Amino acid sequence: MATLPPRLTKAQQKVAASDLDAVLISSPAATTYLSGCYLLTQTVIPEREAYVLIPREGSISYLVCNIEEKMAREDSWIDDVHTYVEFKEAPATAVANLLQQKSSNPRRIGLEIHTLAASSYRLLQQALFPCEFVSWDQPMAELMMVKESDEIVALETAGRVTLTAITQALTEAVPGSSERTVFTAMMTDMMTQGLLPMFNVFTSGPNTLLVHGEPGSRILQPGDLIRLDVGGRWPSHYLSDMARTAVVGPPAPAQATNHQKLFQAQRETIETVRPGIPVSELYQVCAQSYARQQIPFTMPHIGHSMGIGLHEYPLIHPGETAVLQPGMVLNIEPFLADASRGEGYHVEDLVLVTESGYRLLTTPTPELIQLPV
Amino acid sequence: MATLPPRLTKAQQKVAASDLDAVLISSPAATTYLSGCYLLTQTVIPEREAYVLIPREGSISYLVCNIEEKMAREDSWIDDVHTYVEFKEAPATAVANLLQQKSSNPRRIGLEIHTLAASSYRLLQQALFPCEFVSWDQPMAELMMVKESDEIVALETAGRVTLTAITQALTEAVPGSSERTVFTAMMTDMMTQGLLPMFNVFTSGPNTLLVHGEPGSRILQPGDLIRLDVGGRWPSHYLSDMARTAVVGPPAPAQATNHQKLFQAQRETIETVRPGIPVSELYQVCAQSYARQQIPFTMPHIGHSMGIGLHEYPLIHPGETAVLQPGMVLNIEPFLADASRGEGYHVEDLVLVTESGYRLLTTPTPELIQLPV
Repeated sequence: MATLPPRLTKAQQKVAASDLDAVLISSPAATTYLSGCYLLTQTVIPEREAYVLIPREGSISYLVCNIEEKMAREDSWIDDVHTYVEFKEAPATAVANLLQQKSSNPRRIGLEIHTLAASSYRLLQQALFPCEFVSWDQPMAELMMVKESDEIVALETAGRVTLTAITQALTEAVPGSSERTVFTAMMTDMMTQGLLPMFNVFTSGPNTLLVHGEPGSRILQPGDLIRLDVGGRWPSHYLSDMARTAVVGPPAPAQATNHQKLFQAQRETIETVRPGIPVSELYQVCAQSYARQQIPFTMPHIGHSMGIGLHEYPLIHPGETAVLQPGMVLNIEPFLADASRGEGYHVEDLVLVTESGYRLLTTPTPELIQLPV
Repeated sequence: MATLPPRLTKAQQKVAASDLDAVLISSPAATTYLSGCYLLTQTVIPEREAYVLIPREGSISYLVCNIEEKMAREDSWIDDVHTYVEFKEAPATAVANLLQQKSSNPRRIGLEIHTLAASSYRLLQQALFPCEFVSWDQPMAELMMVKESDEIVALETAGRVTLTAITQALTEAVPGSSERTVFTAMMTDMMTQGLLPMFNVFTSGPNTLLVHGEPGSRILQPGDLIRLDVGGRWPSHYLSDMARTAVVGPPAPAQATNHQKLFQAQRETIETVRPGIPVSELYQVCAQSYARQQIPFTMPHIGHSMGIGLHEYPLIHPGETAVLQPGMVLNIEPFLADASRGEGYHVEDLVLVTESGYRLLTTPTPELIQLPV
């Protein structure tokens, strides 16, 4: 049997230190994290569930649809691979049977209840009656929160590729191009470098206030603001997620000022990052910067951690009690809505918490990016 | 108030004809279908839930995160839009409150339990105690099953764009290209025509047996089989999903024969399509074609309906009891694993059930597509 990677040992220690008999991991991000195997269909066909079963004692198992068995056996470091056949057996029933084989008389089981389907939850309740089910969302999120060095390299590389693609597509856009043309050039560059498209926000002019608008056939006009928020998946499955704001030709003074203020708020927030600081303090620093600069602050959160999952724990919101630790990464992404101009401004960069402070994994862009006219 | 589209009237009639006091729709595909509004984050940030609430009597409501309010008000034909603020209130708690305002003393509520998160299910149980919750997955799936003419046009257009992009990228590939280069050319063409990337299977040589392998840096060699399964999202949110198999240079006789047999099985299955035929019969016809041609049949399903969702009801599997009706669409996608050659073959095309039989919405490719050498 292969040596288990540290993350699996840590997960099992966490289960052993709890009052649980076993934990069932089912979210796409966490099963990929624990198994080392990325199953595309877990996201695009959610009913084709995959589970990592962590018993209190004994070996960790991986349950996948038989269609994915070859992939699981080739890519996963978990040797104990089991399969179910779709339409013959519900995945939740199959994992309940597996759990009963591996754990005698289980009474308390941890689940990722924020992502597990209610139908699977009900099947587990029936199959494992009278087991009690408790949320293991938070312990799992905390396991994934501090990144290992290879994860940081992947995130930094994916971010660099994304920034290059964004900058190039915008600064080299042919005047008179549509949103779609510039967006396509950006994604083509990202794909050529190895990033698979994942998140496609690209808006211009009046659409920049649509927080998650997608590229359309609108022709970019001189003076138009462009707001984008794009990302891709690196071959090792780590994500990029980056927002930028641009303008076609030279910015109007109000546009330049808006962006400067937004950049300033992002910078003040980033410069607050160091171990021991509560995550909620980042939110407060950002809010205070908006107040001082007299721009409207309306965001329920101003950023999030990221890894294999897009929004990983913690999110930067006022109620968050987590404290920054070395190895955590945070996307800092303030947004500014200028209602009088009907424009939305957005920047987003990834920061690593280090032993002494922070290190930028992507390089913020101080000025509005300019498209040729 | 705007006139409600027929699908909403039908949905409300279905609720009124049941013993339910209200139905909560929460899956990305069904909420988009009912609301007319596509929220990107519903898929990529699943905890940012959106709900369509269909009470037994009275108006239909749409609940979204306040970040998406502008999009919901602009794009949805549902006038009664409500919002919740993330981290201040759980979406399920917000929708429970809304339901109590719209339905006095609710007792039985329908849910899409196959996609609703277990955490939201538990919150609804608490907030609406002693309500009983029943699955509304099947009624909702049946509402979406028969396509309207604009849906068929979107599916046909998206399919045609996809086939053109696939054929062009493969037949014009520069010898010595990598998987990634050919895949990128394909996706660039799709994006240029307006399809946003959604599903990215592209494998070559020994990787063709990995059912959902993604493009990598492998250089395509003469004689290599290439198997791909790609799709995108049309601006009206309808999907394409198409599989093709190709070869670099002229095929080996065994490769050509494998593809002919696979194509024959697909053709026999498609030619069986007409109203009144049980879906399971398509599966049997396909299995019998494999048996007659002496190729191994191992698929748990051989296709699926599609619309805004990738796998919509019904899937073509032996236990399915649905019967074909005019207006249904089916992707017919047999797969052939040749273990001795270590190769996987796959074709997938979209068929519309008509009053008298079927109409191809995408055109099957009888021969292996050839890449230049």
